[in-house]
Amino acid sequence: MADDPEWAAPSLELLEEYYRKLCNWGRWGPEDERGTANLITPEKVREAAALVRRGVGFSLQLPMDASGPQRGGLGRVNPIHQMMATGTDHVAGKQDFPNGLGYADDSLFLVLQGGTQWDALSHIFRDGQMYNGYGADLVDSSGARRNGVENIPTLVTRGVLLDLPRVVGRDHLRPGEAIDADLLDAACAHQRVTVADGDALLIRTGDMARRRTLVGWDGYAGGDAPGLSLLAMPWLHRHGVSAVATDTWGVEVRPNEISGTFQPLHLIMIVSMGLLVGEIWQLDELAEDCAADGVYEFMLVAPPLVIPGAVGAPSNPQAIK
Amino acid sequence: MADDPEWAAPSLELLEEYYRKLCNWGRWGPEDERGTANLITPEKVREAAALVRRGVGFSLQLPMDASGPQRGGLGRVNPIHQMMATGTDHVAGKQDFPNGLGYADDSLFLVLQGGTQWDALSHIFRDGQMYNGYGADLVDSSGARRNGVENIPTLVTRGVLLDLPRVVGRDHLRPGEAIDADLLDAACAHQRVTVADGDALLIRTGDMARRRTLVGWDGYAGGDAPGLSLLAMPWLHRHGVSAVATDTWGVEVRPNEISGTFQPLHLIMIVSMGLLVGEIWQLDELAEDCAADGVYEFMLVAPPLVIPGAVGAPSNPQAIK
Amino acid sequence: MADDPEWAAPSLELLEEYYRKLCNWGRWGPEDERGTANLITPEKVREAAALVRRGVGFSLQLPMDASGPQRGGLGRVNPIHQMMATGTDHVAGKQDFPNGLGYADDSLFLVLQGGTQWDALSHIFRDGQMYNGYGADLVDSSGARRNGVENIPTLVTRGVLLDLPRVVGRDHLRPGEAIDADLLDAACAHQRVTVADGDALLIRTGDMARRRTLVGWDGYAGGDAPGLSLLAMPWLHRHGVSAVATDTWGVEVRPNEISGTFQPLHLIMIVSMGLLVGEIWQLDELAEDCAADGVYEFMLVAPPLVIPGAVGAPSNPQAIK
Amino acid sequence: MADDPEWAAPSLELLEEYYRKLCNWGRWGPEDERGTANLITPEKVREAAALVRRGVGFSLQLPMDASGPQRGGLGRVNPIHQMMATGTDHVAGKQDFPNGLGYADDSLFLVLQGGTQWDALSHIFRDGQMYNGYGADLVDSSGARRNGVENIPTLVTRGVLLDLPRVVGRDHLRPGEAIDADLLDAACAHQRVTVADGDALLIRTGDMARRRTLVGWDGYAGGDAPGLSLLAMPWLHRHGVSAVATDTWGVEVRPNEISGTFQPLHLIMIVSMGLLVGEIWQLDELAEDCAADGVYEFMLVAPPLVIPGAVGAPSNPQAIK
Repeated sequence: MADDPEWAAPSLELLEEYYRKLCNWGRWGPEDERGTANLITPEKVREAAALVRRGVGFSLQLPMDASGPQRGGLGRVNPIHQMMATGTDHVAGKQDFPNGLGYADDSLFLVLQGGTQWDALSHIFRDGQMYNGYGADLVDSSGARRNGVENIPTLVTRGVLLDLPRVVGRDHLRPGEAIDADLLDAACAHQRVTVADGDALLIRTGDMARRRTLVGWDGYAGGDAPGLSLLAMPWLHRHGVSAVATDTWGVEVRPNEISGTFQPLHLIMIVSMGLLVGEIWQLDELAEDCAADGVYEFMLVAPPLVIPGAVGAPSNPQAIK
Repeated sequence: MADDPEWAAPSLELLEEYYRKLCNWGRWGPEDERGTANLITPEKVREAAALVRRGVGFSLQLPMDASGPQRGGLGRVNPIHQMMATGTDHVAGKQDFPNGLGYADDSLFLVLQGGTQWDALSHIFRDGQMYNGYGADLVDSSGARRNGVENIPTLVTRGVLLDLPRVVGRDHLRPGEAIDADLLDAACAHQRVTVADGDALLIRTGDMARRRTLVGWDGYAGGDAPGLSLLAMPWLHRHGVSAVATDTWGVEVRPNEISGTFQPLHLIMIVSMGLLVGEIWQLDELAEDCAADGVYEFMLVAPPLVIPGAVGAPSNPQAIK
Repeated sequence: MADDPEWAAPSLELLEEYYRKLCNWGRWGPEDERGTANLITPEKVREAAALVRRGVGFSLQLPMDASGPQRGGLGRVNPIHQMMATGTDHVAGKQDFPNGLGYADDSLFLVLQGGTQWDALSHIFRDGQMYNGYGADLVDSSGARRNGVENIPTLVTRGVLLDLPRVVGRDHLRPGEAIDADLLDAACAHQRVTVADGDALLIRTGDMARRRTLVGWDGYAGGDAPGLSLLAMPWLHRHGVSAVATDTWGVEVRPNEISGTFQPLHLIMIVSMGLLVGEIWQLDELAEDCAADGVYEFMLVAPPLVIPGAVGAPSNPQAIK
Repeated sequence: MADDPEWAAPSLELLEEYYRKLCNWGRWGPEDERGTANLITPEKVREAAALVRRGVGFSLQLPMDASGPQRGGLGRVNPIHQMMATGTDHVAGKQDFPNGLGYADDSLFLVLQGGTQWDALSHIFRDGQMYNGYGADLVDSSGARRNGVENIPTLVTRGVLLDLPRVVGRDHLRPGEAIDADLLDAACAHQRVTVADGDALLIRTGDMARRRTLVGWDGYAGGDAPGLSLLAMPWLHRHGVSAVATDTWGVEVRPNEISGTFQPLHLIMIVSMGLLVGEIWQLDELAEDCAADGVYEFMLVAPPLVIPGAVGAPSNPQAIK
């Protein structure tokens, strides 16, 4: 396999080669709808739990509200939170309950992939098919009849954070900076951590922190960003990761490496590999803690909301150390 | 304290007595917005993780879709899942991406307390105040400025399931059947489990299973149901539970025990105690497993979505054994 | 043409015959997206205005709120009205404006065909095509690129009400009662009114009044109802009506006349004729007035909301006499 | 009354004077919820109809979609149009109907005052009250129990367009340019049109055209704009207009004339006068036509959608000449 960064360079040919060679269709049976989540074994769950040493948890979810990163691209807008009953109604005597009781209630409209979220395996198609060979036409206006996010009702595994800005000695990777296998290996070595079958790989690029603290959200959704290189794909496959998540909008480096493509690694990761892909994760607080105690592995509990037929779903991922 | 079921009977006087005596206002400082979540210590998190023995996880979330239990009461409707891009668009050649790529995207409108969810401490008021003495007017149309659900970004603790139908030898508790301290004690004894400081108590009444398999959802939201008795309130306080969740709409027994009241225990649990209350949890699969292996304790990881200013939020709670 | 009710009976063959013979594809050019709205001439608009004799207006819109007729069929729910700012917030001092000013604001989620509405010509397809031969694939998740409702930004014409319950001497037509050409002729004669090129024909069956006052909305959306017969199709074509609207969910008689079909007249009316079809109109108040003054013609101003790409849109139709 | 622009200048004192003197509370009875709509008599409706001479209609609605002017201020976002069923589903064989039938369906989420719309008399409060003295607390999270937009189910009257850019000989009025009584009089004289009791006054500033063709929507909602001066308030009252609408976001000149105020004329127009205020109207096409034929009066049919309890509602206003 052309997995040697000394020899390979991103190209359409290599994209096709990886698309074919890293393919997991049929690996877990012709009816499989869970993809690499199958790599998470009970043993792995126990191993994850054993990583809880201090008893501290971290939320990896970006707070979900109107201040979020969406700017309308692909029709995606920020969440709309609306009150249905309020304390001001209660105070004004507008609620008719006994014993002094009042209540508040609320609703939310959200684009399911607008914030911290998992792509379902029905999120991406290629030439009329999705992961495991199911027809793309199985995703119509009523939702996904195959590969919906409800196939992953639980998600508990060992998580590993690769905090790349700290590895390379900068505040953040640059937009357009590609993360290849060498950098992943260097990060593992620098952080003295290994990645093994069933692990979830969390990659911090620092791009979210840069946006939140320095330049604002404009350009975050769909704009230039650091991210995975095509040359990292075999690495993900070889290490048997069950999931990969980043603090960026789309995991892949942008501008995309190969001229004329659009998010081409999604074809390999989601369609071919059936890999769980997490986007817009908030990894900064966890990274601070890992830098402080030098421990970059943890129990990750990150189930998506169970929304039947959804092609993506929000999560409040918990890293527990 | 009138915590002896031989002597006490539910009454307005007892409601007021418990409201005063079980109060946690100020217990964790004048600025506290987390209530009984403060009872969850790092030691408790480690204890929870140590309960992961087999490496199996259970989702306690009711799937979130149009088939849910809401019937319009309090303006609450079932979630509305809508596609923004589909595989049929891709198949019809309506998406203009290179390399054969296509995608699907979707949105969700949900009433935040319409399905499996946590009440925030800003959900209930009494006489113009909410938990810890904050003014109810701090919850206006822009959301909760105090006691919002975002104060609980992580939630990891030991969970204990009390599977009451199996304790009493019936398929389900009856609507109107009140769960008092005696029944809780009997369940603990029957299941050989104890409940201690910081634990989350999950109470299965069988009502959800009855609705889903026998009678349908009509009457689930706001109708008659088994649930907690006023006489169980001191028990919850004495055992130091950080959270209580049930498979019913409102945790409390309905019709409410005291004539002329409406969800009066919410006043004690949420306003006075600052207790995390979970509703519409799906406990049946977990209960089957607990009955099979005889183990009713587990690691519970059940963070709400982080929605700033929300007075409640959905969760996909994970019980890990 | 088989337009003689003495000879014809509803059948698949007649459906196909009418589908072919009543076809308006190409009649107003190959690029037309307005269908029978083309029949409304400036002269017709002036004629309509001349019908304003008393100076009274009637709203034909069913109030749009949670009490509406939708029960979830086809995913259609009633409108959801939510406040974004309230007077109770203002009273509680939560709005920070000078000079004592406060404000309220609100939002609405609505299924566009859930209440009083016009079907756009992109609402119905047959065998991959819609009105005027446009491909059905032009209506994808981004909306209708052809035949969208925005092609009818104005709608002013002469309206004629046929108040069938009063014609037949009953409170309402019965569910399943078909309205054929004979009945339409009888109504015109009874009411001493004629229908001519460009007119909008409003047909009151009494079904909405029956639902609202007697039996409730269950079964209104998609259930049995009085409505147009296949045998009335040539009548509509021959009289050159620009639009037809009823007080029912779907204009056609239900159960549909021809076994094994579903809303077959929509194929003729919308796909073949390009006829504007209005549904769920509230005609009772207008009917009362017409019965009182004996005048069943009026100026109708009933534009849909201009929503680009929408396949239907609400309207507050005004009948002005 | 201080209605002489030679003498008066905008000030807080004058604001208060006009607020008192122009007040219509009680004018149409203590239970009135229609305000200046009461000025529209049957005679006025007949007069309006008589203005239909050529038989042409104009939509004054800005198309309602994601390209609209909202930028998130006051929580207002552009409409969200979503498909519920599509032609691509039909083409892909995903709809199970007989006879080749397929369908499309859609939904809309809209902020009711986000586009072309009428303010309801419950939109604005002062010191705890709204028009006609009703308590602001009557507008809570369940909507407006008084002065809701449903009180104006029909709206037919004579409309007069004042096309100010053409009057002053420029493409558009400038942001911050105030429209006083002198300018209104000059426009009437220039256009040879009078304004009388019950008329709707449509004022074109050219600001929308400037935004749409030159500078984009940024700054339209809530930013600087030409608009009415405090000095025009007595003019509106004296001429007995039933409604005033502009092509701007908020009718009033912005920055507001009096330092430290926010939309102060809303207090006079809506709270005190009970005047119907229309915003974000699209007047350009109508203005072109009026310039061409020299006729600035027309029949206006502009009912809001009937949404019970709403504090504003969209309309597709029709000007018919």
